[in-house]
Parts: sequence; C-alpha cells; structure tokens
Amino acid sequence: MDERLKRQLNFALEIDKEKNIFRQTHLSGHGRNENDAEHAWHMAVMAYLLREYANEEVDIAKVMLMCLIHDIVEIEAGDTYAYDAESLKTQKAREDAAKEKIYSLLPEDQKRELIALFDEFEAYETAEAKYAHAMDNLQPLILNNSNEGGDWKEHEVNAKQVYERQGKTKLGSERLFEVTDQIIRENIRKGNLRE
Amino acid sequence: MDERLKRQLNFALEIDKEKNIFRQTHLSGHGRNENDAEHAWHMAVMAYLLREYANEEVDIAKVMLMCLIHDIVEIEAGDTYAYDAESLKTQKAREDAAKEKIYSLLPEDQKRELIALFDEFEAYETAEAKYAHAMDNLQPLILNNSNEGGDWKEHEVNAKQVYERQGKTKLGSERLFEVTDQIIRENIRKGNLRE
Repeated sequence: MDERLKRQLNFALEIDKEKNIFRQTHLSGHGRNENDAEHAWHMAVMAYLLREYANEEVDIAKVMLMCLIHDIVEIEAGDTYAYDAESLKTQKAREDAAKEKIYSLLPEDQKRELIALFDEFEAYETAEAKYAHAMDNLQPLILNNSNEGGDWKEHEVNAKQVYERQGKTKLGSERLFEVTDQIIRENIRKGNLRE
Repeated sequence: MDERLKRQLNFALEIDKEKNIFRQTHLSGHGRNENDAEHAWHMAVMAYLLREYANEEVDIAKVMLMCLIHDIVEIEAGDTYAYDAESLKTQKAREDAAKEKIYSLLPEDQKRELIALFDEFEAYETAEAKYAHAMDNLQPLILNNSNEGGDWKEHEVNAKQVYERQGKTKLGSERLFEVTDQIIRENIRKGNLRE
C-alpha cells in the first residue's frame, strides 16, 4: 500500500477514538451521556436540514464537514464542558497541541486542509463557522430540553450562563435564536433552569 | 413556532434514537459495539478523505449526506447484520415501512428529498451510491481488522461471505477494493477469517 493511502487509513482508524469521548449532554429519553462522534453526526444532519435559516448563504458541504471534524481534537484534548470556567481557560492550548498531533497522521495537504477548517470554525468569523456554531449550540439544547433540562440541573447552570453561550446562535441564525430563546424561557418557567 | 420549523426540530429530536441502534461491529481496541450514528459519522469523514479513490467523480456533499442518513430507517427497522441471511430477506420490507414513517415527520419537500437520497443509496447505481457503499464496507472492515477479525470470529463468517459483500467495494473504488482484498488475505493468513 502506498504511503499516502496508508496515512489516510491510519487517520481513519485513529478517529474511531472520538466515539469514546463523552460529553455532559444526555441522549433523549433520559439516556446515557452522548459522545463526540454522535454529537458531530447529529449536528451535520441538522445543519443540512435547517440551512434555510442561516443568516447568510452557506456552503453546506463545508458546514457539514466542519461539524463532522470540529471535535476530533478532543481525542487528545478531552471534552471541555461549555460551563466549566476552569477548563475553558486551558482549552485553546490543549486543543492546539492536539490538532497538530492528530492531523499529522494525514498526508500534508489534508493535514493543512483540515486544520484550516478547524481553525475557521474556532475563529467564528465566516458564515459557515457561525452557522456551524449555531448547530453546536442547538443540538445539545434540543436534547436537554427533551430531558427537562437535566444537564443544566446536574451542573447547577443558570439562565445567564446559558444565554451567554446560546446567545451566539444569533450570529449564525436569527431565526434559530428565536427558537432557542423560546426554549430557554419555557425551561425557566417550568423551573428546569435557574434565573 | 411555525409548522415547518416545528416538524424539522421534531425530526431532529427523533433521529437522536439512532444512537441507540447497535451494530455487530466493535470499536477499535476491542471496544463495545458501535452504534449507527457513530458508524454514519465515521463513513462520512472517510468518504471525504478518500474521495480521490472513487472510480468516478462524485458530488461529495451528496455522498456525505447519503452516508449520514443511510441508517436512519434502522430506528424503526433495526440493524440487519450483513451476514444474517434470515434478516436480510425481510430487510427491504421493514426498511420501506420505516422510511415512510420516519421521514413523514419532516416537511413534505424534505421528506421527498431524503427518501429519494436513501432510495438512491439502496439502488446502488449512481457513482455516489456506489462510493457510499464502499465506505459502508470499508469502515467496519478497518475496525474489525484492528480487532484481529473478532466480529467475523464471533459470527463464524467465512472468506466467501466476506468477499461477497466486500467485493462490491470495487464498484465504487477499484483502489479501495485492492486494499480490502489485501486486508482480507492477511486475516485469512493469520487465522482470523476461515477460508
């Protein structure tokens, strides 16, 4: 087997480990914790189905790929919970080291391409990155909403913290932020989320 | 919330259940059984990275979406193991009923679109369908190969059966079938797969 294909298949096998990186979100039906690979799959499908609500026209293939790869670094860096202030401080350094290590398994051109796509997601500037982040927010929100806000309760998160994160959804989709806002308000009213 | 968006979000929540549909394949490192959502995610990333080996030029966004949705019907129909002859007989009828039920949650235009894409995958005729099927074969093969053929041993599968399924990879990618053939031969040689 030639070197290029061997590297590609080694990378393909390595990312299998993403299925063992668990998040704080629980599956619907008060299920188990969700892992990163499932989360990425769910985000990518949602991105496709909801693309009509993106603020700007997006290259949907790019968005889907961004969703699919955005958490690969967590194989090395671990998951950082959105409301864990201490871990958030070190997240960037951990993920930068991780991305260099993992993507170096690929042929050089693909390494550069995927790191550029990951960096674009992180930079939160392009239409695709903003819309992909909206999915990164909305996907766990609909699960948590279906579970009566169990993830918020477990971590004693309050509405201000939730709005700080979920508020950014409007950068990618004004319409989906309206829905987000509606879901958050309902959860406050029901006592699932502290004001 | 308007009816269209409500339907889209209901569908998005419904497909969360795909994370509870487990396959016969095990994760690398002799891990647990893989679920359909993880499998779809893995296939879509591999499809993107290996697209240079497709026999014909493919619309990669279409392939990725095809990979992402191809097992959604299994939420209703259950997983059918590739080497379970009895279940294979009823697979089409079960999946046809399932696709009507699940995709009916979506707005009519998106229901039609996703059913058409699923049917295209199943029909195995277009370049995209043939290449997506190559991923559906290669992805579990690299996991099973990394686990010394544990899935074949567990189900007492023989080389003829494996070639019947994996042989179709060449319809989507001659190059990836060469690798497939090499992996199968190595596993026969090592005693991981019966001749």
